Amino acid sequence: MAAKRTEIADLGEFGLIDRIKNGFSLQNLTSLKGIGDDTAVIDIGTENLLVSTDMLLEGIHFDLSYMPLQHLGYKAVAVNVSDIAAMNGKPEQIVVALGISNRFSLEAVDMLYEGIRAACSNYKVDLVGGDTTSSPSGLVISITAIGRAAKDKTVLRSGGKPNDIICVTGDLGAAFMGLQVLAREKEVFQTNPNMQPDLEKYEYMVGRQLKPEARMDIVHELAEKNIVPTSMIDVSDGLASELLHLAKNSGAGIKIFEEKIPIDSQTYETAIEFHIDPTTTAMNGGEDYELLFTIKPSDFETLKNHADIHFIGHLHDNASQHLMISKQGTVVPIQAQGWKHF
Amino acid sequence: MAAKRTEIADLGEFGLIDRIKNGFSLQNLTSLKGIGDDTAVIDIGTENLLVSTDMLLEGIHFDLSYMPLQHLGYKAVAVNVSDIAAMNGKPEQIVVALGISNRFSLEAVDMLYEGIRAACSNYKVDLVGGDTTSSPSGLVISITAIGRAAKDKTVLRSGGKPNDIICVTGDLGAAFMGLQVLAREKEVFQTNPNMQPDLEKYEYMVGRQLKPEARMDIVHELAEKNIVPTSMIDVSDGLASELLHLAKNSGAGIKIFEEKIPIDSQTYETAIEFHIDPTTTAMNGGEDYELLFTIKPSDFETLKNHADIHFIGHLHDNASQHLMISKQGTVVPIQAQGWKHF
Repeated sequence: MAAKRTEIADLGEFGLIDRIKNGFSLQNLTSLKGIGDDTAVIDIGTENLLVSTDMLLEGIHFDLSYMPLQHLGYKAVAVNVSDIAAMNGKPEQIVVALGISNRFSLEAVDMLYEGIRAACSNYKVDLVGGDTTSSPSGLVISITAIGRAAKDKTVLRSGGKPNDIICVTGDLGAAFMGLQVLAREKEVFQTNPNMQPDLEKYEYMVGRQLKPEARMDIVHELAEKNIVPTSMIDVSDGLASELLHLAKNSGAGIKIFEEKIPIDSQTYETAIEFHIDPTTTAMNGGEDYELLFTIKPSDFETLKNHADIHFIGHLHDNASQHLMISKQGTVVPIQAQGWKHF
Repeated sequence: MAAKRTEIADLGEFGLIDRIKNGFSLQNLTSLKGIGDDTAVIDIGTENLLVSTDMLLEGIHFDLSYMPLQHLGYKAVAVNVSDIAAMNGKPEQIVVALGISNRFSLEAVDMLYEGIRAACSNYKVDLVGGDTTSSPSGLVISITAIGRAAKDKTVLRSGGKPNDIICVTGDLGAAFMGLQVLAREKEVFQTNPNMQPDLEKYEYMVGRQLKPEARMDIVHELAEKNIVPTSMIDVSDGLASELLHLAKNSGAGIKIFEEKIPIDSQTYETAIEFHIDPTTTAMNGGEDYELLFTIKPSDFETLKNHADIHFIGHLHDNASQHLMISKQGTVVPIQAQGWKHF
């Protein structure tokens, strides 16, 4: 009898994560929160320790033909810091595991670490360890970030309550459109190497793709204003996917308004140029690394004039109903969509 | 002018690590020890937090034609636990970043996690997070382990003093010979697929290669006997390399006796069969994951009858003199040798 073969793609990324999670139970009292949030949460006495890990693989997460190595180094740190931010924590240390083939020179490795160093300096994080090995083919960079949050200020995905207001920072969809622009320019360049790419009008989007920032500024501002979100997640896979994570973990329903979703005007116009619905870039684009969070209605007054926080809807008590009210006033169900790498 | 290109191989693994280390300074008070020991050390109040990371790449660190996926999962955890053990600490959590291509089925992923689960259970470690992504080609597994040690019992590479006795656990060189046996059997199988490999007489070595164990038993025994090594490291790259790390960090010289180096009789005979000097398998083979440590002379009495701890020499005050006294009584300098993947 042949061994059974099930494709990973049949389960999907989130299905696979659930399967792994269900196969493991926690045995140490210090393990407060395992798989299933932006970071693990470990008890270290007066505070919580937050641990996040992300692996970036050449050919999957980046293309070195348009991703400079400094930016790759910066981004690899920023995406981990973003996970710490999503717990309302502050990052303090990272360890970096790097697989690199002999097609890379020492100067290339230096550039990568220059980006890592710039991110460490910006986010006030120390590189405290790592592993460096050769890789048979592509570049692999896997970073683990360690941060801290006060026990009563650690924000999980699960604390949202009906009527809490759904907030998102910055704007969405730009990193995704930046990637589309870069992919198109690469194709043009391959067809006609003498053609100089004109990226100026796409500069903002390309920057969002190549050099995303973790929103530590928001974490600090919320602390100053003494606001603790009831639930939070970072927008790495697209707004739709993250909304559904908050809803599922908080046991609440979602209602958002399409007109409230923050989309930069350049992103909007470029999406139209590419024949993509601008709302789709925000809902399913991903890699924005903005913060999506919920606040108690009583905190709205304090935040309502914040220039970079947008109020896109609220939670409600029908945990199976996740809806977007379109600009035309129609009701659109919010659909899950994880990464589709497999 | 062409950009300068320096090969990573010109610098070597340890040169590269030094270069990275020198490019970063520590800015957070909680970062007690950065790059340059078996783990990073982070201040968490009454205890130290220990953080280790290791990346295993298909085609570099393992060959799936003879490495069962369960064993790979087990080994990926064990090598990280071994780093925690080398600080005299106890592991508590791991996070696992996995890059896997669509040539792997869900059943294959299950087998990998079965090995991870077995190791978690054996070492009392919780899997608390991770990242799962597709890989364009080979399997990549990057694990970060988190452990703890009491402040006064955390053992660095740097605490050795002249006259301290050099100890090593278990036996050395077997994992390296196991790899030679597996590589030979693979070649034989490729030439003649009907030939059944006869691995019985090599079973111990093959087991040491495929399923290494971290010596947490030794960490617990030393604690019971109230002995804190003065310096410690795990034997991952070969005895010679690890001895030189202890010497360099402790600012001491090394004197060991070839006849005292523990080599299993099967390993010894197989090395002869392969025309390899048995001592070379111990000095430069690597992947033994035994503990190499130094103790104060006054602690010798307590340990001298331990069945699995071997006393192979001592530190002395000439920090530039690292010698092995051969079985014939000649003096042989101990040579550095890191990984040669690049």
